[in-house]
Amino acid sequence: MAIPEHIIISKDMHRLEEMLKDRRCFALVDNNLRHNPIIEIFGERVLFVEATEDIKTLDTIGMFAVHLLDRGVDRDTLLVGIGGGITTDITGFLAAIYMRGIRCGLVPTTLLSQIDATVGSKNGVNVNHYKNILGTIRTPEFIYLCPEVTLSTSTSSNLNGIAEMLKIFMLRDPGYYQMAVDHYTGRKQHDLTDLIRRAVEIHYEIVEEDPEEWGARRLLNLGHTFGHAIEKCGEMSMPHGKAVAVGIIIAARMAVKMGLLKEADFQRIYGDFCMIGLPTQPPVPLTSLTGAIRKDKKKVGNVIYFVLPTGIGSTVIKPLTFEEIDALVSSL
Amino acid sequence: MAIPEHIIISKDMHRLEEMLKDRRCFALVDNNLRHNPIIEIFGERVLFVEATEDIKTLDTIGMFAVHLLDRGVDRDTLLVGIGGGITTDITGFLAAIYMRGIRCGLVPTTLLSQIDATVGSKNGVNVNHYKNILGTIRTPEFIYLCPEVTLSTSTSSNLNGIAEMLKIFMLRDPGYYQMAVDHYTGRKQHDLTDLIRRAVEIHYEIVEEDPEEWGARRLLNLGHTFGHAIEKCGEMSMPHGKAVAVGIIIAARMAVKMGLLKEADFQRIYGDFCMIGLPTQPPVPLTSLTGAIRKDKKKVGNVIYFVLPTGIGSTVIKPLTFEEIDALVSSL
Repeated sequence: MAIPEHIIISKDMHRLEEMLKDRRCFALVDNNLRHNPIIEIFGERVLFVEATEDIKTLDTIGMFAVHLLDRGVDRDTLLVGIGGGITTDITGFLAAIYMRGIRCGLVPTTLLSQIDATVGSKNGVNVNHYKNILGTIRTPEFIYLCPEVTLSTSTSSNLNGIAEMLKIFMLRDPGYYQMAVDHYTGRKQHDLTDLIRRAVEIHYEIVEEDPEEWGARRLLNLGHTFGHAIEKCGEMSMPHGKAVAVGIIIAARMAVKMGLLKEADFQRIYGDFCMIGLPTQPPVPLTSLTGAIRKDKKKVGNVIYFVLPTGIGSTVIKPLTFEEIDALVSSL
Repeated sequence: MAIPEHIIISKDMHRLEEMLKDRRCFALVDNNLRHNPIIEIFGERVLFVEATEDIKTLDTIGMFAVHLLDRGVDRDTLLVGIGGGITTDITGFLAAIYMRGIRCGLVPTTLLSQIDATVGSKNGVNVNHYKNILGTIRTPEFIYLCPEVTLSTSTSSNLNGIAEMLKIFMLRDPGYYQMAVDHYTGRKQHDLTDLIRRAVEIHYEIVEEDPEEWGARRLLNLGHTFGHAIEKCGEMSMPHGKAVAVGIIIAARMAVKMGLLKEADFQRIYGDFCMIGLPTQPPVPLTSLTGAIRKDKKKVGNVIYFVLPTGIGSTVIKPLTFEEIDALVSSL
């Protein structure tokens, strides 16, 4: 399946400028892009967002709504969100409910949000400790993916996007897996636009095969069962992408133990992750994570549909009971 | 055009009970219905709402979301809203965004909300003094209209619904206009379910003829130009329906002045409104309202598409400049 038309992947910003020329726009922009030339498109019609997880609240939505009203944003205005997943989540949600819905365009600027966060057309805010509990599913008018505009983030936060990219390629494309590893270890430069394009393409293929979320889409959960548990493990927790990297390594270890993955393949994945700088060890003992797994929101009764790699580019989904997971984990 | 299938008009609550039997539900119910038998359908799965305009906020939405989470409301739960327009607005909005959208059913229990508020599938909350500025347009799974369950409201607040009902019949149906007048003056009892059904039917006919809101739908604005101005006139303001009643009388007076409506027809409408107990006089001098009309959100340049009665059951839309309105008003 092709990438949908509203996803635009481009090496530069020219097409975005062209699209927005002569349109009534207003932009919510990550504060770190304050000096990026992209904002010139919008002139004065910009609100900068101090994008931290704790601003993803209804209070922010209310505050921003008042700001938009004061600035004359109306039903004919296109609201453009430029930034990482927090900025695009807030922009998408605000556009979905402001004046009962106005048009929205997104320009994700972190590798993670380019690959992952905006593809599902989901948006949302947190309430107390409940993440993304209020939001909508609403396809924006466009999502503009351009590696040229990236938040000048540290390598460390870029690793979150790299982990998601490797996850996608591990599911379906050994060739691109190797290209991404070569690119991010510095062994060989590849075209980042092409890597992103292929990752988004696979993501859409999988979502398309399984709109109801009961089959192939579960594959996207590779590394996420332990990944989510690590994210929730309190003060020692890791950001999403890195936690997923550790989760993938744990899943690969389990797969070896179950005779599904060759030891040599595991060693290769493990080596690649280490070389790129991705974490491979949980920040707390593995056995302390199994409690959180029992609360996994994707559990079905006392079973988790666990995604296990069977090679680089292939995976299998196995229903595992909590007891089976416990037993496997304590044998690792 | 027929009334859409999701609108269920019933003389009693049996069909609702039948529909909800064996379904996973949770209800938001107006506190004044605490002792109404309807809530027995839901057992413990009810949250009572102190429904005043100042709870239509994002804070309430966040608070209710936490409550629903604590009570185990999930994606498979039908959220039912039972009450007036405030309760159904909050329920509709919450259902639209909770866990990115769960199913929703509405049981409006005031005459006004039965006829008006829920027909458009709009919902929303206020931010500061901006009314319904955040919300969605989303058709509920069902809207159950049953005159049996009405909030034990005073005659005074029932008048708001009566005014909207008379407005609808004045647009298209002289026979039902007379039936409603007979019913609400006590001259002759009619079947309230039938009156509601016909009012909803006409409402849908008009919306259907004009989905883009540029033609026939403007008819629904009869009485609303001065009505909104009266609502906004501060301490002396009136609730929506009553303000619309006064607005209809002003529009009818203007129509007489313009030679569009016979004096005898005006006298009949005026007499009917008085007999029912609807207000006919603005709470402030008419000329002091023309400022607010210049800010009417439905103005086009310096013109208002003014709805004027030409008889009982017929109307005409005339573009009037603010100057023409001023001149007409000072001649009344």
